[in-house]
Amino acid sequence: MAAKRKTRKKTSVRKSIKIPARLKKSRKEKYVYFFGRGKGEGKSKMKQLLGGKGANLAEMTNLGIPVPPGFTVATNVCALYYKNNKRYPSFVQTEIDHNLSKLEKASGKKFGDPKNPLLISVRSGAAVSLPGMMDTVLNLGLNQEVVEGLSQKMNNPRFAWDSYRRFIQMFANVVLDINPHDFEEILQNIKQLKGVVNDTDLDVEALQLVVKDYKSLVLKETGKDFPDQPKDQLAQSINAVFSSWNNDRAVYYRKMHDIKGLIGTAVNVQAMVYGNMNDNSATGVCFSRNPATGANKFYGEFLINAQGEDVVAGVRTPQEISLEGSKEWAKNNNIDESDRKKNFPSLEEVMPKVYKQLVQIKNRLEKHYREMQDMEFTIEEGILYFLQTRTGKRTAASAVNIAVDMVKEKLITKTEAVLRIEPSQLDQLLHPTFDPGQEKKVIAKGLNASPGAAVGKVVFSADEAVSQSADHDVILVRIETSPEDIQGMDKAKGILTARGGATSHAAVVARGMGKCCVAGCSAITIDYKNAYFITKDGVKVNQGDDISLDGSTGEVMLGSIQTVEPSLSGKFSQLMKWADQMRKLKVRTNADTPHDTEVARKFGAEGIGLCRTEHMFFEGDRIIAMREMILAETKEKRILALNKLLPMQRDDFKGIFKAMQGFPVTIRLLDPPLHEFVPHDDKGQQAVAEALGIPVSKVNMIVNSLHEFNPMLGHRGCRLGITYPEIYDMQVRAIMEAACEMKKQKIRIFPEIMIPLIGTVKELTILKKNAINIIHQVFKEKKTKVNYLIGTMIEVPRAAITADKIAAEADFFSFGTNDLTQMGCGFSRDDSGSFLGEYVEQGIFEKDPFVTLDIEGIGQLVSMGVTKGRSVRKDLKIGICGEHGGDPDSITFCHRIGMDYVSCSPYRVPIARLAAAQAAINNSSKKP
Amino acid sequence: MAAKRKTRKKTSVRKSIKIPARLKKSRKEKYVYFFGRGKGEGKSKMKQLLGGKGANLAEMTNLGIPVPPGFTVATNVCALYYKNNKRYPSFVQTEIDHNLSKLEKASGKKFGDPKNPLLISVRSGAAVSLPGMMDTVLNLGLNQEVVEGLSQKMNNPRFAWDSYRRFIQMFANVVLDINPHDFEEILQNIKQLKGVVNDTDLDVEALQLVVKDYKSLVLKETGKDFPDQPKDQLAQSINAVFSSWNNDRAVYYRKMHDIKGLIGTAVNVQAMVYGNMNDNSATGVCFSRNPATGANKFYGEFLINAQGEDVVAGVRTPQEISLEGSKEWAKNNNIDESDRKKNFPSLEEVMPKVYKQLVQIKNRLEKHYREMQDMEFTIEEGILYFLQTRTGKRTAASAVNIAVDMVKEKLITKTEAVLRIEPSQLDQLLHPTFDPGQEKKVIAKGLNASPGAAVGKVVFSADEAVSQSADHDVILVRIETSPEDIQGMDKAKGILTARGGATSHAAVVARGMGKCCVAGCSAITIDYKNAYFITKDGVKVNQGDDISLDGSTGEVMLGSIQTVEPSLSGKFSQLMKWADQMRKLKVRTNADTPHDTEVARKFGAEGIGLCRTEHMFFEGDRIIAMREMILAETKEKRILALNKLLPMQRDDFKGIFKAMQGFPVTIRLLDPPLHEFVPHDDKGQQAVAEALGIPVSKVNMIVNSLHEFNPMLGHRGCRLGITYPEIYDMQVRAIMEAACEMKKQKIRIFPEIMIPLIGTVKELTILKKNAINIIHQVFKEKKTKVNYLIGTMIEVPRAAITADKIAAEADFFSFGTNDLTQMGCGFSRDDSGSFLGEYVEQGIFEKDPFVTLDIEGIGQLVSMGVTKGRSVRKDLKIGICGEHGGDPDSITFCHRIGMDYVSCSPYRVPIARLAAAQAAINNSSKKP
Repeated sequence: MAAKRKTRKKTSVRKSIKIPARLKKSRKEKYVYFFGRGKGEGKSKMKQLLGGKGANLAEMTNLGIPVPPGFTVATNVCALYYKNNKRYPSFVQTEIDHNLSKLEKASGKKFGDPKNPLLISVRSGAAVSLPGMMDTVLNLGLNQEVVEGLSQKMNNPRFAWDSYRRFIQMFANVVLDINPHDFEEILQNIKQLKGVVNDTDLDVEALQLVVKDYKSLVLKETGKDFPDQPKDQLAQSINAVFSSWNNDRAVYYRKMHDIKGLIGTAVNVQAMVYGNMNDNSATGVCFSRNPATGANKFYGEFLINAQGEDVVAGVRTPQEISLEGSKEWAKNNNIDESDRKKNFPSLEEVMPKVYKQLVQIKNRLEKHYREMQDMEFTIEEGILYFLQTRTGKRTAASAVNIAVDMVKEKLITKTEAVLRIEPSQLDQLLHPTFDPGQEKKVIAKGLNASPGAAVGKVVFSADEAVSQSADHDVILVRIETSPEDIQGMDKAKGILTARGGATSHAAVVARGMGKCCVAGCSAITIDYKNAYFITKDGVKVNQGDDISLDGSTGEVMLGSIQTVEPSLSGKFSQLMKWADQMRKLKVRTNADTPHDTEVARKFGAEGIGLCRTEHMFFEGDRIIAMREMILAETKEKRILALNKLLPMQRDDFKGIFKAMQGFPVTIRLLDPPLHEFVPHDDKGQQAVAEALGIPVSKVNMIVNSLHEFNPMLGHRGCRLGITYPEIYDMQVRAIMEAACEMKKQKIRIFPEIMIPLIGTVKELTILKKNAINIIHQVFKEKKTKVNYLIGTMIEVPRAAITADKIAAEADFFSFGTNDLTQMGCGFSRDDSGSFLGEYVEQGIFEKDPFVTLDIEGIGQLVSMGVTKGRSVRKDLKIGICGEHGGDPDSITFCHRIGMDYVSCSPYRVPIARLAAAQAAINNSSKKP
Repeated sequence: MAAKRKTRKKTSVRKSIKIPARLKKSRKEKYVYFFGRGKGEGKSKMKQLLGGKGANLAEMTNLGIPVPPGFTVATNVCALYYKNNKRYPSFVQTEIDHNLSKLEKASGKKFGDPKNPLLISVRSGAAVSLPGMMDTVLNLGLNQEVVEGLSQKMNNPRFAWDSYRRFIQMFANVVLDINPHDFEEILQNIKQLKGVVNDTDLDVEALQLVVKDYKSLVLKETGKDFPDQPKDQLAQSINAVFSSWNNDRAVYYRKMHDIKGLIGTAVNVQAMVYGNMNDNSATGVCFSRNPATGANKFYGEFLINAQGEDVVAGVRTPQEISLEGSKEWAKNNNIDESDRKKNFPSLEEVMPKVYKQLVQIKNRLEKHYREMQDMEFTIEEGILYFLQTRTGKRTAASAVNIAVDMVKEKLITKTEAVLRIEPSQLDQLLHPTFDPGQEKKVIAKGLNASPGAAVGKVVFSADEAVSQSADHDVILVRIETSPEDIQGMDKAKGILTARGGATSHAAVVARGMGKCCVAGCSAITIDYKNAYFITKDGVKVNQGDDISLDGSTGEVMLGSIQTVEPSLSGKFSQLMKWADQMRKLKVRTNADTPHDTEVARKFGAEGIGLCRTEHMFFEGDRIIAMREMILAETKEKRILALNKLLPMQRDDFKGIFKAMQGFPVTIRLLDPPLHEFVPHDDKGQQAVAEALGIPVSKVNMIVNSLHEFNPMLGHRGCRLGITYPEIYDMQVRAIMEAACEMKKQKIRIFPEIMIPLIGTVKELTILKKNAINIIHQVFKEKKTKVNYLIGTMIEVPRAAITADKIAAEADFFSFGTNDLTQMGCGFSRDDSGSFLGEYVEQGIFEKDPFVTLDIEGIGQLVSMGVTKGRSVRKDLKIGICGEHGGDPDSITFCHRIGMDYVSCSPYRVPIARLAAAQAAINNSSKKP
């Protein structure tokens, strides 16, 4: 602060210095733009010059909406400010003074005149929203004289003194940079002195005392009196807004979000209006349609003799604006009509004229903006003012209904309707959500790994989940999950893990199941032995306690909170049909079971892009045969064990082929390292030893020998296929035997065999040759043939780099962007939680690269893979099957680089369909 | 086989079919090339047409060297063979017959004539050596009649019958494809029947029995009699050679080694000569210079009345060819002159005329080929024949001496001398080796991780290594090593690990120390508890037992084998000086201590390319302060602990700066994850808890929370710098304080601060800014300034891909190709041992990609990084500091893509200097 004041002194000394040429007023250039009396000098499109707020105030004024008059000091002045030693030039002051006069005229009040004072607000506003800049100063123009005049004029000294005290506090904080806590302390002291609890209980005398102490504090902190002259107050405020443009937070924000090309911020100066002047005044908010349901009914609330803050504070119960809404509200709250009419009348009843005007303006605004509007209004002594209008936030259901309705009303086109829905919002429509009315006690927050709401009793093991789920709903709480936990995860209503990121095992599997999951919740510490977990804040939760998980926010709550089940409307189907007509990308699903496959087909999946075969090995007897295979010492013994798995695997594929008939099914051969299939604890090893009739010491030795330091980079994927060809041989046989049997049943199938973790074409050459050998054997045995493709995952960076070589052997590429991100960025998905949060916070990555594809980096590998692949094989089928296949931003990228399809978990299929349509629209020349 | 014979039958039926136009004899084309009587129709340069062997036989003949006459059926016939249903066309037969006549004339013998039979050898020979093809048939031309004639003519029936029996066996095996074991069985049976042990003990009668049984076997296996007609034998042999060109092994070998553009193999037909005809005959091998020392003295051995095989078999003691050599040999073996003269006379004494001729030819060949020659000769009845001459294999010392001598003799240029030495061979000159005379019992084989020979008693822990090394040499045997083991590794003579690859911790550290290391020896299982290891073959080695390690071959031997210390000759320095004048790449070293730095300077290092700071934290008190830092809960406490490390770290840097004065020193900030610095066992955690006065439960909790699933992709490198900026702050301060103090002492230093694991430019932007802040503080405090650079490792694939972005913030790039290979290929260096061996074996990778840079894949990332980096910053300094910096092939690549320097472990510096020179020569237009 000291430095800041020093600078100011210096510049005031420089006042007499001659203005350099570059700062001279340009004849062409205009610096201040007036709005009021039905005419704004600006319009919506002038955001670069007037900032978003200034441009919109001008637009509304031009639409004939009653907006309190004011003017915008444009962003070009901000640029001059920095050229002029951080002070706006005097020729701008001339324009400001001129506009201030216009404002006085428009408002019929006079700035600094105690008898009829004009009070104003000062707000910053750049072309894009920039957190970190100075926000707002209200009630500017008050001083000792004016406050007394205001008291008399309004006959409300308390209102006048409270406004003054608020003004000093706000100005001192944002303009003079004094710590707000110091003011709070003064306020607290005086409340204590007066023996009152609420600010509103302070009487005029007390408020005068507050003002006095505030001013002393300002003198002490700045060495100067609080500015008394309204024009000084305004000049200082404007300079402070410009100064805040380059404060650390704002600069950092622009840098990290790569926001360039802005010349500065604008400053909006506007006459104050007061809804709390008397009982002929009011304030309220309203929506042109119902934001919760989307119903085309005017909806809003207001309070007589109140300020905007009072509506938000919730001390008084707001009233409905329409009579219909009011009656409905009364009915829901068991209030009889006479009570309602007396205590909670609608605006339609209380101020019928104003209400009529409000409805007219609402209609005009919605028609003008062609969007549902969220509006703020104030009625000052019976006169209606609009303070703001903006596109209204809404629920997903509401968004869908409004979009489809507006198409029917011919307000917007189908294309616009499709563009109106945020794809990720659809999650709300597909999963249960918490009833928003409920109170919730959040005890920890993790990663919102899989959306939905889940409630149940805590269990700490998959086995417990299976056994207890028969009696009641359970939430499975684990440090992390592994493939052994699949059955327990299936039985649980929701999953909570202490470790792991957006593509950890728990997250991926839960999303596949459409099950709520909060992952990587490092705020909890789990004690398996004593069956409890404890949060950072010391809340202890025992096995059997009820908790609620919000997979859409990552919140963990104590107790049981009511949920709302999703329901899909006809309008939703309508919208999705339009989207399907517009998109170019096909949308497939990642599904490993007939059940998941059926779910995905209902959501519109057009094939399976990734069928993982490893999950199939955990059920029942299979895991025993699988372990027998792993523990076998010779190829012959491995083949014997694999032969036991063959019929089960074949049945799996038959089920999936049937469920996805008519569409392609891409089956990935075994991918995870073998140690994922063996037990690592003594008890488990004992059991395996007994089941297989071998000594436990041998089981232990083999399990130890399978240990890997970095299993992600270890002996897995096609490396298993190279070293143990018999494993892939069995899987290929199971796929093709199933395929041949389907064909005999006249079921249309399109099997695609996918080989994981290819790094060099030579691996694919060898494995493809092996596979074709088996396939020809099966065809011979079954005396039939089936069309098939053999392709590869592109998930190792080397594969993307040498895609031209690999394409020579591959019928298709499927980008495994989870692993490509892990290897390309060097981030273990299971470990990066310890720093990735901070990385996103510091803006090193804008979004978690496991959620949204890192286009700058990993994206280059992907597009290199596509370009190189197609350079060798024009018709190469290309898709993505990493988790990014369900992320809208990533889908846009996939469309842009010319992929054929995306594949995602079943519950993300609708999101992908919509995102694909939006990508197609936004990348087309016909973009609206 | 059945199929093969069937084909033959078919083609004989086709004999009468009209020859298609494309198979007609071309007027211009010649198919068979004669050599003999001092003139060869071919020459060295015709390898494509005549194969390597054929071309060289012609060349020698033309030089006037007495080579047994013969002819070469050229590779163009091989092409015709495949167009003609696998049978060479009849017009080629005409040429063969014509050449056979010439051969009869030249040799004065007649093919198939019992009285004076011409016997021939048939050998394959393509333009490049191709394992897997048919090799050799000797003594072709024999049948019942001829063998009897030969018996009479030579008056040596045993020789004749033994030749016949060998011929049948060889022909049946390589031409008729009959299992050689069946022949061995027959031979064994008859030896048993006759009660003899050695083949040589079989008399004529027995050999005749063998021949009879052999022929019966052939009839049984092929359904045909063994071919009696010499011309049939020849035709079948030639077809068999052509057929072997496309057998599975040869095709596979060509595919995997990417050998393209060959039209086929040639067939060499040559008259047999016999050194075992009588006492006027002999056979021998000789070198134009001493292959062991390089001395310019004729060196060789021979045996009277013997065949080539006898020299190799070692049953009889070969005699020296020169009198001088013979006398020296006798002296070394304590044989007096009369004994020598009687029993082991030199060729110079026995056949002075032939000896003189041999010397003349030796001189002519060395002058012609301008290289030390390794020659095979046979003397048949006093007539000298040369069977082969080729560049002689030699030891590294010998190679250096010969090359430098030949420059002095003006035989070759300096450039040629530099090109003559295989850089990797220099290892022999820099490390101890095993005395080649010693017997060794190899009990296991691992990876040749760091060259040299080491002998000592087995210990199983670093602590034992430290304590026992005071009394005797020790070999440290570990499952794997970690940074905690550094001191023990330093004290051990050699290191043996059961796990880990060429860039595992043990391998990298051992190479840095110039210490012998065998890594990833999966053939041993270690039992720490009972202090022994056991090999796959069941050899048990206890603590305290002597073992010997050969780090150049990866062999582990039982007992103590004598070693030979290396010594560097003046000729070596001379050669290296020439190399230094020719290379463009600078050669730096990877060194972490003043001692390593001094070693490297002696080997010619021109700076440090990688100084790892993490090893510095393990000594004495440092590890305590380091652990205190890791276990601290607040930034303040961490800073307190780091302040303790600061002076120690500063002293480290001062030592290194001093040792490397005048050259740049690149210091990498902390890279490994923090869990590498904390103890993971109960005892260690107890000790830490006591040392730091905190509960052991807390130590345990923090250690557990640091656990990572894939530490390679975890919280390490610059990610630590981002989340705990105080760590890098301390390191930067230590570096710059040391630098300022050096400057005050007038020591010339060029510090380069290197930030590891950068994946995105934003990380570098933040960390560089932090570093510059600290540097400016230090300059202010020390009242001086020092030039410095701040750069980054390029080791994350994403960094290479976005190198244009990163270069904007970096003064230099250093490619960390170890990690780039790990992440780019998805190979954990610690785990890939389980499949990488098989990968190399199957030809998926030609060489271990951790040893020789995978140019096709990872190389693309590197060159992309160089190109993109320089596109933004032309003067960007670029080097490599991965283990590849010391690998000759990788150095060639680094030169080609325009790097400024390579950096490698101290003992690899001379190798890198030589390889860099060769790369410069081979890539220059002035290439000799």
